Amino acid sequence: MNRKMVFYMIGRIILIEAALLLLPSVCALIYRENCLFALLITILIAVVSGLGLTLLNKPKDITIFAKEGFAIVALAWIVLSAIGALPFVISGEIPSFTDAFFETVSGFTTTGASILTDVEAMPKGLLFWRSFTHWIGGMGILVLVMAIVPTDSGRSIHIMRAEMPGPIIGKLVPRIRTTAKILYLIYIVMTAVQVIFLLCGKMSLFESLIHAFGTAGTGGFGAKADSIAGYSPYLQWVITVFMLIFGVNFNLYYLILVRKARSAFKSEEFWSYIAIVSVATAVITFNILPQMKNVSESLRAAAFQVASIISTTGYATADFNLWPSLSKGILFILMFTGACAGSTAGGLKISRVVLIFKSIRSNLKHMLHSRSVESVRFEGKTLDNATVRNVTAYLGIYIFCFVAIFLILCIEPFDLETNISAVAACFNNVGPGFSAVGPASSYTEYSDLSTWVLSFAMLLGRLEIFPVLLLFSPTVWIKTKTTKKRI
Amino acid sequence: MNRKMVFYMIGRIILIEAALLLLPSVCALIYRENCLFALLITILIAVVSGLGLTLLNKPKDITIFAKEGFAIVALAWIVLSAIGALPFVISGEIPSFTDAFFETVSGFTTTGASILTDVEAMPKGLLFWRSFTHWIGGMGILVLVMAIVPTDSGRSIHIMRAEMPGPIIGKLVPRIRTTAKILYLIYIVMTAVQVIFLLCGKMSLFESLIHAFGTAGTGGFGAKADSIAGYSPYLQWVITVFMLIFGVNFNLYYLILVRKARSAFKSEEFWSYIAIVSVATAVITFNILPQMKNVSESLRAAAFQVASIISTTGYATADFNLWPSLSKGILFILMFTGACAGSTAGGLKISRVVLIFKSIRSNLKHMLHSRSVESVRFEGKTLDNATVRNVTAYLGIYIFCFVAIFLILCIEPFDLETNISAVAACFNNVGPGFSAVGPASSYTEYSDLSTWVLSFAMLLGRLEIFPVLLLFSPTVWIKTKTTKKRI
Repeated sequence: MNRKMVFYMIGRIILIEAALLLLPSVCALIYRENCLFALLITILIAVVSGLGLTLLNKPKDITIFAKEGFAIVALAWIVLSAIGALPFVISGEIPSFTDAFFETVSGFTTTGASILTDVEAMPKGLLFWRSFTHWIGGMGILVLVMAIVPTDSGRSIHIMRAEMPGPIIGKLVPRIRTTAKILYLIYIVMTAVQVIFLLCGKMSLFESLIHAFGTAGTGGFGAKADSIAGYSPYLQWVITVFMLIFGVNFNLYYLILVRKARSAFKSEEFWSYIAIVSVATAVITFNILPQMKNVSESLRAAAFQVASIISTTGYATADFNLWPSLSKGILFILMFTGACAGSTAGGLKISRVVLIFKSIRSNLKHMLHSRSVESVRFEGKTLDNATVRNVTAYLGIYIFCFVAIFLILCIEPFDLETNISAVAACFNNVGPGFSAVGPASSYTEYSDLSTWVLSFAMLLGRLEIFPVLLLFSPTVWIKTKTTKKRI
Repeated sequence: MNRKMVFYMIGRIILIEAALLLLPSVCALIYRENCLFALLITILIAVVSGLGLTLLNKPKDITIFAKEGFAIVALAWIVLSAIGALPFVISGEIPSFTDAFFETVSGFTTTGASILTDVEAMPKGLLFWRSFTHWIGGMGILVLVMAIVPTDSGRSIHIMRAEMPGPIIGKLVPRIRTTAKILYLIYIVMTAVQVIFLLCGKMSLFESLIHAFGTAGTGGFGAKADSIAGYSPYLQWVITVFMLIFGVNFNLYYLILVRKARSAFKSEEFWSYIAIVSVATAVITFNILPQMKNVSESLRAAAFQVASIISTTGYATADFNLWPSLSKGILFILMFTGACAGSTAGGLKISRVVLIFKSIRSNLKHMLHSRSVESVRFEGKTLDNATVRNVTAYLGIYIFCFVAIFLILCIEPFDLETNISAVAACFNNVGPGFSAVGPASSYTEYSDLSTWVLSFAMLLGRLEIFPVLLLFSPTVWIKTKTTKKRI
C-alpha cells in the first residue's frame, strides 16, 4: 500500500477538521462559555498533528487504488472521531474518553445514539459541535475534502466509492471533484431552506441550526431531553418532511436541477421509498389511535416516527417504546431498510432491499424453468450478475457483523430486545432503540467494552462494512513499491 | 403441469399415512383407550380419499419435472398434516381444528412447538401418533415413499431435492430408490439403538419410543410437562448425544458404513458443527454456573440445551428463558444456524453458514484486488458460481419470509422478544422460543390467525421455502400437454 499517500491524506483531513472546529468556537464565544478553551486546545492539537502528518509524508506517488481508498476512509473516520471527542473530554463535560468517543462517532456516523443523561446542561458551543458532526458526516468528510482540495488525481472515485452509501455509485459528472461540489451545494442549500422554515415556526436560530444539522445528516442529536416532543405541530411537520427529503437519493435533486425532472421521477427506488413510508404511516396511525387524542395527532406522531426511523435520523416526538407491538415491529423493520442509496441515511438502503427482492423473484422463476435465465432489471437498466451478487453478498456480511456485535453485547445484563435493538439502532445509524435504549433512555448504562463495540458498529454501518473490515486485513498494510506497471 | 401425476402421488402418500396410523392404533389398543376409535375413523377417511385419488388420476405420463416435484412435496405435507390432525379433533382431545393442524404440522415438520397446556393428560395412543409424526417427517415422507414404492421413474431426484434439506443434494448411489432405502435403514437402526440406550436407563418402553422418535426426527415432542427435566442425568446425556448424532449429515454415516470413514471425517461441515457445539457449550456452562449447583450440572444443562437448539429438537431440561442474556443470545443464534445439511435438523444448516462465510471472505479479497477471482472451495471441491449464488439468494428469501411472518405476528399483544423468537422457533423448526413462548410455556395464547401463520412458517422452514412458495405461483398450475420435446 501507498502508506505515505494515506497518511498525507489523513493529515489534510485533520487540518480541515481544525477549520471546522472554528464554527463551534465562534458559537462558544458568542455565548461566552468556558468550553471555548477546550475547543481551542483541540484546534491546536489538530493543527499540529495535521501539519506533522502532511509534512512528514509528502508523497511522490499520489495514485490511489481501491486499497488506499478504503484505508484512507476508514482511518480518517476513526481519527476524526478521536480528535472530535477531545472538546468533550477537555471541558470535562464528558469526562470518560470512551463515552466522548462514542458520542462523537455517533455524531459523525449520523447515528444520534447518546450517552448523555442531561443534554440540556451541556454548553451551547459543545452542543453545536455535537450536531455539526452530523452535518459533516452526513454527506461524507472525504467528499468534502474532494470538493474543496484541488488534488483530483483522477482516481478519487475509489475514495468516493468507499464513503458513499449504496450498491451502485454513479458520478453525476465526469469529474469527481465537480460531482462532490454539486452534492455539497445541494446539501447546503437544502439545509439553509430548512433553517428558514424552522425560524418561521419561531424556533431560535441556535436550535434551528442544531435541528437542521441533525435532520440534514439524518443524525438525530437535538437540544432538548424530550427530543422534538416539546415543539409545535408545525415544527414537527417541518422536521418530518425534511427528514424524508434528506432520505432521497441526491442524484434525483441533481437531475431536477439540470431540468431532467422526468427521469428523476422514474426512479424505482424513490417510489418504493414513498410507498413504504405511506403504508407504514397509515398502519401505525391506525394502530396507535387508541393512545392518542385524535386522528391528526396520531397521524403526526406516526408520520414523524416513520420518517425519523426510515431516514435513520432518530428524533422522537413520542416514546414509541410504549406503542403496540405492531407499530414497534414496523419501526424495527424500517431500521434495517433505511432510506435511499446516495442519501445521508443509513441502513441497508431501499435499493438493496428492492434488488434482493427482485433477485429472489428471478431465482424462483429459475427454479421452475431451469433453462430460463432472466436478468434482474433495476432503474430501467439490466444489471450484470456481479452487481446482484455484490448485493446479496453484502446482505451476508451485514448479517454476519450484526450477529457478531449482538453476541458481544449479550454480555450485558439487558434483555434480548434491548440488545438486539441497540445493535440495530447503532449498526444502521438510527440512534434510539427499544426497551432500555428506547427514545426516553440513553446508552449510558452500557459497559465500556460495549460502548467501544457499539462505536465500532456505528462506523461499520456508516462506511458499509468493507472499508473498516479491510483495515484488519494484513494484506492492506503490506508496503508496495511504486511501479509504473500498476494500473 | 402434469396434474394427474401430482394427484396420483398425493393419493399414494395418503394411503401410506393410513398404514402408518396403524401403529398408534395398536398402542391405543394395548392401553385400551377410547382414542382408538378416532384413529380408526381417520384411517378409514385416509383409505377412502387415498384410493379415490389414485384410481381417479391414473396417469399416462409418469414423468416428474422440477415443477411437479415441488408441487407434490408441498401439497403432500399439507394434506398429510390435515389428515394427521383428525385423530386429535375426532377424539376431542384438541377440539379446534386450527390447533390440531398446528400440532400436527409441528409434528411432521419436526418443530415440536405445542399448543397443549397439559401434555400428560393426553391418551397414550395420541401421544404416540404425535411423536411418530416427528419420526416420519424427520427423514421425509416422500423419501419414505420412494424407498417402499417401486415407481422409480428415474426423475424422482426432483422430489428428493424438494424435500431434503441443505444446499447441495447428492445421491449416495446412482439409483434414487436405493439411496432412499439406505437412508431409512440408517435412520431405523440409529433410532433402535437409542431406544435400547433409553431402556437401559430404566425409561419405560412407551416413553423410550416417544423420546427416540422426538430425538431422531429432531422434533421435540415428549411425554411430560417438564420435557426431559425430570429424567436422570444418564438419560439426559443419552438424549444429548443422540440429538447431536441426528444433526450430522447422514451421508457421513453411509460413508462410514461402506468403510470410507476417512473421507467422512474430512467433512468441513462436520468439524464446523463440532466446533460450534463445543464453543457454545463451554461458554454457556461458564455463564450459567452461578445458577447451578456445580460444574457437572452446569455442563449437563448447557450441553443439553445447545444440542437441543442447534439440532432444532427443542427438548429442555431447564427453563433457559431464565438464563443470562449471553446464554440466551447464543441459543438464539443457534436457532438460525441449525445443524448439518442432509440431517433431520432444521434452520439454515451449517453448510450454508460456512458457504456464506466463505463467500464473504472471497468478496473481501475481490474488493482489494479487483482482478483476482478466487473461487469458493467447500468439502474439497471448487464450487461453481451458481451454487454460491443460490446460497446467498436463499439467505435473501429466508430473511424476506422471516420479516413477513414476523410482521403478521406483531398484531398479537406480545413483546418483540416473544414474537421474534416465536417466528425463529417455528420457521427454523426448533419449537420453544423465549419469553411467552419459552420452554415452560406453550403457543396456546396465540390467536387463530397467528396459529395458521405459524403452521405455514413451519412448513416453509421444513421444505426450505421454495416448494411452498411455488404453490402460489400461477405458472405452476398451468396444464401442460405431454410432448416428447420436454427433456
